[in-house]
Amino acid sequence: MMPKKKAVKKTAKKEKQTPKVIAGRINEMAKGIVRDIKKETDPEFITQQRGRSNVEFDEAKGVLRLGDKKTTRTFLNIGHAKKFMQTMLVSSKAHEYLKHNKTASIREIYYELKHTVPNTKENTFEGQTESDSCIVDLEHSVDTIREKLNLHANPKGTLYGDITLRDKVHHNDKFNCGKLGRGGWSIMSRLEPEEIEIVSVDAKYILVIETAAMYERLVEERFAQKNKCILVGTGGQAARGTRRLIHRLYDEKKLPVLCFTDGDPFGWYIYSVIKQGSMALAAHSDFMACPNAKYIGMTLDDVETYSLQNVTEKMKDGDIKRAKEMLEYPWFQNKEWQLQLKKALKEKIRIEQQALANKRLDFVATDYLPQKIKKKDFLP
Amino acid sequence: MMPKKKAVKKTAKKEKQTPKVIAGRINEMAKGIVRDIKKETDPEFITQQRGRSNVEFDEAKGVLRLGDKKTTRTFLNIGHAKKFMQTMLVSSKAHEYLKHNKTASIREIYYELKHTVPNTKENTFEGQTESDSCIVDLEHSVDTIREKLNLHANPKGTLYGDITLRDKVHHNDKFNCGKLGRGGWSIMSRLEPEEIEIVSVDAKYILVIETAAMYERLVEERFAQKNKCILVGTGGQAARGTRRLIHRLYDEKKLPVLCFTDGDPFGWYIYSVIKQGSMALAAHSDFMACPNAKYIGMTLDDVETYSLQNVTEKMKDGDIKRAKEMLEYPWFQNKEWQLQLKKALKEKIRIEQQALANKRLDFVATDYLPQKIKKKDFLP
Repeated sequence: MMPKKKAVKKTAKKEKQTPKVIAGRINEMAKGIVRDIKKETDPEFITQQRGRSNVEFDEAKGVLRLGDKKTTRTFLNIGHAKKFMQTMLVSSKAHEYLKHNKTASIREIYYELKHTVPNTKENTFEGQTESDSCIVDLEHSVDTIREKLNLHANPKGTLYGDITLRDKVHHNDKFNCGKLGRGGWSIMSRLEPEEIEIVSVDAKYILVIETAAMYERLVEERFAQKNKCILVGTGGQAARGTRRLIHRLYDEKKLPVLCFTDGDPFGWYIYSVIKQGSMALAAHSDFMACPNAKYIGMTLDDVETYSLQNVTEKMKDGDIKRAKEMLEYPWFQNKEWQLQLKKALKEKIRIEQQALANKRLDFVATDYLPQKIKKKDFLP
Repeated sequence: MMPKKKAVKKTAKKEKQTPKVIAGRINEMAKGIVRDIKKETDPEFITQQRGRSNVEFDEAKGVLRLGDKKTTRTFLNIGHAKKFMQTMLVSSKAHEYLKHNKTASIREIYYELKHTVPNTKENTFEGQTESDSCIVDLEHSVDTIREKLNLHANPKGTLYGDITLRDKVHHNDKFNCGKLGRGGWSIMSRLEPEEIEIVSVDAKYILVIETAAMYERLVEERFAQKNKCILVGTGGQAARGTRRLIHRLYDEKKLPVLCFTDGDPFGWYIYSVIKQGSMALAAHSDFMACPNAKYIGMTLDDVETYSLQNVTEKMKDGDIKRAKEMLEYPWFQNKEWQLQLKKALKEKIRIEQQALANKRLDFVATDYLPQKIKKKDFLP
């Protein structure tokens, strides 16, 4: 049987999970199951329970965590048998990827494993949600993230600034992301330290930007050069690869993280995911979260400060629902965010980053951001 | 009044629209309006009629075009007055951008121009759709694309391979997109020749790839190096910047274009937009289309050829509706596509690019694409 999962407390330790270490853990888990079968006892697979009922906010560290509740799946339980088989297929395939230095998208592993079980009409998987769920089980069971299982979802996000990366497994390419014209580097879906090395970075902070258009604005205004910072465009909710990159700059390079999103519940939630992690990935906060990140804007106070009353938008029903939920989240229980969320619910307006263009195209770069940074006018 | 728009026949001529030329055209248009006002006649703004009723398929050239139908807007018509005012605001702002070498997103120009008309309660614009529509009017009126008005929408898309670009207006950055690790270059929203120079490209063809995950697969398999080609990941329907880049490689560098999408009506439509242009942008085919592009896959015949029966998906209602529409489009009137679309409607299945992982992760790179290229097994 699988050794009981122990919480690994130190981030540094988690980051040292090499492919060999992870492959070893899968091997251990599989050996336990083989032992059970040889002993003619019912093999068990133990993973962590998911969902909000098992998500906790670790106040001391300022990140979300998965609680201690476990789920045990046994092969001889008819309700578990198929899922058990699926988990074994995913585990075995991930082990193979690790052994052969291959990586795959979560859609590819689904397709690779999908087949009809010989002499039956039963398919191994009916849809990708089934294999995705096994991937999460395996991540939790061997206490890692899918990226370290050589699996990844789609890439999204762009990096700009004086940072030099080296792709150690791809021609040893070494490149500076501030010398790629205004396009910038397209952030990969997986960038684990064993493969992508942060060779050097010369910056005072990272500015995480929600919209692709605002990212382009700040690149065009040479904001990174003038303010000695790194720009990361997330294009909406940050993809896992982008979160890993921000986390690595925060953790390895000790760079402060400032988040700049639209002034609405969706934007503020994007910030909270960068800072405290997300409920869906509560188990992975040590790999993803940046608990000291700060929020630079947009806020509803900006509407008055910068006379933007004419360019606000009405909040949609989804925004209102989200704001109400966020009011209750333990990680939004501080006076600044409670005020902000209550203000949103009272005024029912939102303000976009690009609305600053109403002052002047470059106002965001020459006035708004520099003033806020100078005054340390951040939300926690 | 505006000089009557003349169709500029040669692509080369269109490509030579410098910012000065375009600013001059806006100026001419505005001077005509001022003349009308001084003569105390009703000023007119003439643009091309949009919508499918004015879209034609130019069979000789193999691209979509806008027909000759015109729309005239007069200031003293109460139904036109507001739109007239909006068009003048957009024209004047675009002229300013061109004069000062600034670019803006279409969301920014909306915010820049939005204000309450003094002494009234009337806003210049109520929503971005209103300014967007003026941008299209202006594009058509001065016979150009918004990129040459220094306007752009959001960027999307990634470039990989032995191609060296220079950003002439941004530190003169020069970089090779095959030396950026596995991430690749994040394609900008605007890449006009005056700003982004294609310094050199060493490739036999461009492979345009629908999904970000398949793009990553082919980069990981070193497909570009092994097959001497350029990879462009569109991430779904190609953004305008990505279409411009593909067109420029096709037009300036005479590179053949091969498209690789999911085997479904949506993917095939993505291909047709690369090849013949889109109905919404029918006026801009000379800037965007690649009429000699070829389609490499996925096709429904691949399902049999490669025994992928087990990994097809059911077509959704949207796919079925789209396939029926495409059957009627003049640019799908050839036996190969008629067969393909009819097969889709009969079997009601679709096949994704990533389904090839069912053979082997690298099957697409070692077998599928090279075999098709060797046999020239393309759809027109």
